[in-house]
Amino acid sequence: MQHIISVLVENKPRVLARVASLFARRGYNIESLAVGPTQDPAISRITLVVNGNEDILEQITKQLYKLIEVIKVGDFTNTSYVDRELALIKVNAPATVRGEVAQIAEIFRARIVDIEEKSLTVEVTGTPDKIDALEQLLRKYGIIEMTRTGRIALARGSKSL
Amino acid sequence: MQHIISVLVENKPRVLARVASLFARRGYNIESLAVGPTQDPAISRITLVVNGNEDILEQITKQLYKLIEVIKVGDFTNTSYVDRELALIKVNAPATVRGEVAQIAEIFRARIVDIEEKSLTVEVTGTPDKIDALEQLLRKYGIIEMTRTGRIALARGSKSL
Repeated sequence: MQHIISVLVENKPRVLARVASLFARRGYNIESLAVGPTQDPAISRITLVVNGNEDILEQITKQLYKLIEVIKVGDFTNTSYVDRELALIKVNAPATVRGEVAQIAEIFRARIVDIEEKSLTVEVTGTPDKIDALEQLLRKYGIIEMTRTGRIALARGSKSL
Repeated sequence: MQHIISVLVENKPRVLARVASLFARRGYNIESLAVGPTQDPAISRITLVVNGNEDILEQITKQLYKLIEVIKVGDFTNTSYVDRELALIKVNAPATVRGEVAQIAEIFRARIVDIEEKSLTVEVTGTPDKIDALEQLLRKYGIIEMTRTGRIALARGSKSL
C-alpha cells in the first residue's frame, strides 16, 4: 500500500541520510522524497511516498522517533489532505508543432518557462495523476528531459502536524 | 558557495540513502533535496542544493560516480538554467482577513487549494526568492504550517543532462 509520510526534523547534517537509511535497511523503496524548510528555519520537513507493508512501516516509525533529530512523524493514509507535485518538462517543439504543444500546456495550466528554436520547457503543478497525464500527451513530441519534485502534502483544515 | 546538483540514478532501493550519506560523511549540509521519476521509469533524478567547498564537492562527485547506480552527475553552477520550487502554506485566515490573504495569493499567482472557517492553504510555485517573499508577507497573519519541495532545475535550451 502507498503511504505519504511527513517527518519534521531538526535542520542538521546527516539527518536526511539517517532517515533515508532507515527505510532502505528495511527494503522499503522510496518512490519520492522531498525535503525543504518549514516556517521555522531550525526545522525541515521531509515528505516521503513509500510502498510497503503496514507492520514494517510501524516499526520504521518507531525507529524514526529514536533519532533525536526527529520531532514528529505523520502518515496521511486515511486522512483528508492536499498533495501536490511540481515538474519541469523539456519537450521537442520546432516551430511546426510549437502551437500544439503550447495549447496542451495551457489546458493543463502549465507555464512555458523556457523556449528555444527546437524545444520548450514547461512548469506544471498538480496531483501526480495530472502530471502523468501531461507527460503522456507530451511523449508524442519527444520529451528531452523531465524532473519532478516528488509529492508534498498538508492536512486539510486548520490543524497542523 | 551554493550549488545545485542533479544526479541521474537507477530507480532502486538504497540509492537515495547512499547518495545522501556521501554528502553527510563529508559534513556537507543538504539544504534541499528532491527526488522523483524521469521520462524513463527505470531512472530517477535527484536534485540537491548544497553549500560548501568546491574541492570537496569535486571529491563527492568522483565518489558518486563510483556508485554503480549513478548514471550522471551535473552541477548547474555557472550554467544557464531554470529552477523552480513548490510550497504549500497554511495560513490563519478568519473571514475578517480572508480577502486580504486571497489578494496577496493572487499577486503571487498562488492558488488557494483548501479553505476552512479559520484558515486557508495556498499552493505556490516559483524561484525560492518568490516563495520566501510570499512567506514573509503571510507571516503577519500567522503561518500554521508550510512544506516546500526543494528546488528542481533543468538547463536552458534543448540540451539534456
